[in-house]
Amino acid sequence: MKPIARSPGIDRRAFLSTVALLPALSVSFLPASAPAQTATSGGLLPSWNDGPAKQAIVDFVRATVDRSSPSYVPPEERIAVFDQDGTLWVEHPLYTQVVYCLERVPAVVAKKPELKNAEPFKTVLSGNREAMAKLTMKDLEKILVATLTGMTTEEFNAEARKWIETARDHRWKRPYTELAYQPMLEVLRYLRDNTYKTFIVTGGGQDFVRIYAEKVYGIPPEQVVGTAGGTKFGYDKDGKPFLTKEPKLLLNDDKAGKPEGIHLMIGRRPAAAFGNSNGDRQMLEYTKVGGGARLAMLLLHDDAAREYAYGPAAGLPDSKVGTFTQALYDEAKQKGWTVISMKNDWRRIFAFEGEARSG
Amino acid sequence: MKPIARSPGIDRRAFLSTVALLPALSVSFLPASAPAQTATSGGLLPSWNDGPAKQAIVDFVRATVDRSSPSYVPPEERIAVFDQDGTLWVEHPLYTQVVYCLERVPAVVAKKPELKNAEPFKTVLSGNREAMAKLTMKDLEKILVATLTGMTTEEFNAEARKWIETARDHRWKRPYTELAYQPMLEVLRYLRDNTYKTFIVTGGGQDFVRIYAEKVYGIPPEQVVGTAGGTKFGYDKDGKPFLTKEPKLLLNDDKAGKPEGIHLMIGRRPAAAFGNSNGDRQMLEYTKVGGGARLAMLLLHDDAAREYAYGPAAGLPDSKVGTFTQALYDEAKQKGWTVISMKNDWRRIFAFEGEARSG
Repeated sequence: MKPIARSPGIDRRAFLSTVALLPALSVSFLPASAPAQTATSGGLLPSWNDGPAKQAIVDFVRATVDRSSPSYVPPEERIAVFDQDGTLWVEHPLYTQVVYCLERVPAVVAKKPELKNAEPFKTVLSGNREAMAKLTMKDLEKILVATLTGMTTEEFNAEARKWIETARDHRWKRPYTELAYQPMLEVLRYLRDNTYKTFIVTGGGQDFVRIYAEKVYGIPPEQVVGTAGGTKFGYDKDGKPFLTKEPKLLLNDDKAGKPEGIHLMIGRRPAAAFGNSNGDRQMLEYTKVGGGARLAMLLLHDDAAREYAYGPAAGLPDSKVGTFTQALYDEAKQKGWTVISMKNDWRRIFAFEGEARSG
Repeated sequence: MKPIARSPGIDRRAFLSTVALLPALSVSFLPASAPAQTATSGGLLPSWNDGPAKQAIVDFVRATVDRSSPSYVPPEERIAVFDQDGTLWVEHPLYTQVVYCLERVPAVVAKKPELKNAEPFKTVLSGNREAMAKLTMKDLEKILVATLTGMTTEEFNAEARKWIETARDHRWKRPYTELAYQPMLEVLRYLRDNTYKTFIVTGGGQDFVRIYAEKVYGIPPEQVVGTAGGTKFGYDKDGKPFLTKEPKLLLNDDKAGKPEGIHLMIGRRPAAAFGNSNGDRQMLEYTKVGGGARLAMLLLHDDAAREYAYGPAAGLPDSKVGTFTQALYDEAKQKGWTVISMKNDWRRIFAFEGEARSG
């Protein structure tokens, strides 16, 4: 996730951690192409090529579930945490949740016509990407607050669920939920098969990710930790209780907020952590510093043909999303974290590539 | 839990929800006595007498796990939530966590000698119960902040774990962890045997309850929701990351805060909820209003001989802990919640009663 200045103050609007990327709106989309290898073997982690990354995962799991191993981890401590955007699914060129917020603006304005000629809503409605790219952080906060708060949790769930089922990404023309990385889905399953509990720890909105995490990743809502706003309990006119989503930030689950969120929501140090950016650094450090076997992995987006290539660690200019600096890369090497090369370590990236081949 | 004025402001000190009970310090302890019946049968919920309460639990579980039942609940939605103090273990005359905080004062003062002659620490150190009973809410906040924050999460865990292993309650002279209610331990196990996920949703401190919840209740830290303060990520002089417990309230998990906490930490509506006081009212309402079969239960403390009897609903004056008003009792009857009578529904209260009989 893009780093932002951290401020836990209660006045900060919710979900700030996803707003620093507006200029990405003007990024032109790369041409689609999918020269993926189809997985051929039915063995362990079939979408992974043999190599140090796959080996690190398999070695870790084997060492920690083997009772005779000095690195044995008892089942109740088998906690694995995964960043979402850029680690479990595509984050480039825009976080999916930000696309959702922008696309919700017309519906919000329809309900509150007074916003129609007010900024930043007017600019978003114009569809003028160059103008949108110039919106300020303050503008973006207004959009996030207007589209993610002020409704009941049930209304939000219904709206977000409907959107996620119908929206399509611009490059592959597929539901966003199909842009989950097949190799990571295999890792999730492999860990769960070995009685690891898998958690998402995302800078994205907790309520948003919970909408689809169970279906896409097999991760239930109670195992999704994310940037979270407060809710307010109340009763409707029939005395039926409900919760309203408030514009009050409880947890900014990015950077230092990730280990803090892990403590709040999970309450123990993970044995394994997966990330892809500077926003995951503290989570990886916090995981790795525990005693015994600990797995820390970073996904490097270095495959412009099959997905995207971005960031200094990929030898490319920095991206508006998923900053992975050379300094992070160096820290990984120094501390024994494993860097996954999307290009070299992944035989296949998306499940639909296999379909296309066999179809 | 004792109701307190709700204020989600960030300036409120953590764990306020346990402080409104200081006068209880002057309550004299009831004489010990244990005329419990030993469980004789090895059947379902053996520490429960046959009756409407036991029947409600068994009927609920059977209806929700039977695929052919109209009340069937899919496994992933099988969420059951339990208040802790007064529902899973003894809360009278003082919440265990408050005893912990008071007993930690000498150690805190030893580290910070400047507190020795400062109030409220001076009064606590005096051991004068009458003086302690006169401490104000503000005084109590200072005690909670001094004993629950300012240290690393690892230091807190070590201190609290050591205390919980060695401290003894005043009436039974046993570890507090042995004061868990055997009938409720059986319900927890029965629900889990039917693939329900069991959560604690407590007004007590989340970090405190997590220390022993796995051992006592079989509930892992990530399934303990409680009043929670923020933490702050940092590095020690060797660059090793750690978290410091901050005097900043994130979640006041009492009354309306309970459904809010459930949304934050679990993310879906429970199918079953167990409580014992007005502090659990909103959680029970929120649970019961969901569609399909929902179980809502309230434990009434009406057994002065084997445990305690308190509160208007037990025909007694209100207690400083676990307020269970007549209005709550009436709401339960009106809305189809089940009231458990400790006296009539529980054959045995504590596991050690059985030991005593057979030993």
